[in-house]
Amino acid sequence: SHSIDLAVIPGDGIGQEVVAEGLKVLAAVLPQDVKLETTEYDFGARRYHATGETLTDADLDALKQHDAILLGAIGDPSVPSGVLERGFLLKLRFAFDHHVNLRPSKLLPGVATPLAGQPAIDFVVVREGTEGPYTGNGGTIRKGTEHEVATEVSVNTAFGVERVVRDAFARAQARPRKKLTLVHKNNVLTFAGHLWTDVFARVGREFPEVTTDYLHVDAATIFLVTDPARFDVIVTDNLFGDIITDLAAAVSGGIGVAASGNIDPSRSFPSMFEPVHGSAPDIAGQGKADPTATVLSVALLLRHLGYEAEAARIETAVAADLTERGDRVRTTAEIGDALAVRVAG
Amino acid sequence: SHSIDLAVIPGDGIGQEVVAEGLKVLAAVLPQDVKLETTEYDFGARRYHATGETLTDADLDALKQHDAILLGAIGDPSVPSGVLERGFLLKLRFAFDHHVNLRPSKLLPGVATPLAGQPAIDFVVVREGTEGPYTGNGGTIRKGTEHEVATEVSVNTAFGVERVVRDAFARAQARPRKKLTLVHKNNVLTFAGHLWTDVFARVGREFPEVTTDYLHVDAATIFLVTDPARFDVIVTDNLFGDIITDLAAAVSGGIGVAASGNIDPSRSFPSMFEPVHGSAPDIAGQGKADPTATVLSVALLLRHLGYEAEAARIETAVAADLTERGDRVRTTAEIGDALAVRVAG
Ligand SMILES: CC(C)[C@H](C(=O)O)[C@@H](O)C(=O)O
Ligand SMILES: CC(C)[C@H](C(=O)O)[C@@H](O)C(=O)O
Repeated sequence: SHSIDLAVIPGDGIGQEVVAEGLKVLAAVLPQDVKLETTEYDFGARRYHATGETLTDADLDALKQHDAILLGAIGDPSVPSGVLERGFLLKLRFAFDHHVNLRPSKLLPGVATPLAGQPAIDFVVVREGTEGPYTGNGGTIRKGTEHEVATEVSVNTAFGVERVVRDAFARAQARPRKKLTLVHKNNVLTFAGHLWTDVFARVGREFPEVTTDYLHVDAATIFLVTDPARFDVIVTDNLFGDIITDLAAAVSGGIGVAASGNIDPSRSFPSMFEPVHGSAPDIAGQGKADPTATVLSVALLLRHLGYEAEAARIETAVAADLTERGDRVRTTAEIGDALAVRVAG
Repeated sequence: SHSIDLAVIPGDGIGQEVVAEGLKVLAAVLPQDVKLETTEYDFGARRYHATGETLTDADLDALKQHDAILLGAIGDPSVPSGVLERGFLLKLRFAFDHHVNLRPSKLLPGVATPLAGQPAIDFVVVREGTEGPYTGNGGTIRKGTEHEVATEVSVNTAFGVERVVRDAFARAQARPRKKLTLVHKNNVLTFAGHLWTDVFARVGREFPEVTTDYLHVDAATIFLVTDPARFDVIVTDNLFGDIITDLAAAVSGGIGVAASGNIDPSRSFPSMFEPVHGSAPDIAGQGKADPTATVLSVALLLRHLGYEAEAARIETAVAADLTERGDRVRTTAEIGDALAVRVAG
């Protein structure tokens, strides 16, 4: 018999509510003989205000013991911008080497999209998670004066680019269309751009069946709204990935249904699964948040841990629920209940 | 009597075709007593292949003598990515201190958009043009090896941020809605983000009538497709501006109608006006390119030079043409002819 030892970080705002539903569905989908153990951690704004801490070495040691991490959302207007993002979210992604940030986009029949004509959207973005402009490199001189200079350094290594590009090729190879698009801005960011382009070409030779394509990030945003059906797998850097996955979520059902996995494919560290949306303090505590993104993140988590059948059951349940949901307004718990019933049934 | 001494750079691909129509409309709209002088420059792929040059000091001296520059498009697949972009387009923007990159987006009635429900889109992006990740700072070590490291440095100065932010506030102040949104990623790029956020708050105190707003760039892409009507003026850095203005063009009629101005408001250097689209080699020479973006860039050029009535006449003509055009397919020259007739009438 098996067991899952899960770290749960509800976090701030709607994080609490959506994680509760994610766990409800997880409990419902798991076979009887799989033991689920969960340990809740209180990271986020309250802990920061109470102790000044965001994520300590001891916290990392504790988290490291688990099989995987489920996160709701971190962030609150009472905390200065950047403190929890850099001090918790990014610190954890970097500490646990989450270099594959997986963000699938699939527009299901009947689901609302701002795009006219309900295009066929079904792609996945593989966003690099430990390099690029996210490293925190850079600095400020003469802060607050008229002579202030602030820099941000995007760091890109052959090691870091190659491992995420190879992961993306393998994912493309495993999909029916076998198509991989590199998104960058290699005509302007020529140093990083050439590295990405060269590595992409080199690794591509190992995957002769995969059709490849290159788009500048600005052009990619155009195609995401005019012809999203063209995409199968996209691989891109940390910042471009951040930007295009929010846009991808917007056109394929909204951030209420956008899931993500922060994955260390080498399994040296536990991977972390979280909805793409933030803590949405404006609607927190009102039962208005859509837990679907968290539930779909649970599916990614299960797939990562080898529970493919259970992951697929959740995805099927969500697809059916979304398609049948129509315009009906339901509470966070009602959606979670409906999904729990479906996956158990 | 007045005169306009214009440098014309048709460039590559469809650049040639669209610039011809831009000049046609310019000639038609100008009053009889305004003398128009044009000097054509052969920058672009052919010159690069023939001489290895992209833009020399002598070229810059020659261009500097003109009142303004009209550019078609630069870029060709026969030239390695980055050579003409960095060696010509960006070199010129930086050399002539084009720190205000102005990109209006207006969805006209009857114009096709990928968005459902024809939202009311009418905003302008003020993109910084001489700093950020576009400076060319950065480098590569151990190129081509498995130990390669490539960096890109985003450089942001109080001087550079303040002047573009002040320009954007002044533009917002002059518009009916008086609303300015700063777009950045200050929760991750904290060094540059704090500089932008601080300067934005400080300059804002000089414009008490302007309502301000802040959005992370990823969230901005969501609103550009779900609620573009919320935007009035946006100010943002060079790279974020590049990305969101292509998306903005896509939702507000396509890059066939997206105009831009690379402006030095201090008028130490001639400003440059160009369509947002590229050279589109796949349709070059076939009379398929839409010259509307270039014609609208001519309107921005005229406004910059003080010909407000003529600029407005072009914009009115384009609006009428787009609304009446419907699905009819017309050649590049037919559209130019129709616009020339309208502005002269
Ligand atoms: C909150 C922020 C640090 C984060 C990011 O930029 O990666 C978020 O936008 C995301 O996409 O997960
Ligand atoms: C061609 C390229 C250098 C340019 C840019 O990135 O600024 C283009 O995309 C634009 O938006 O004008």
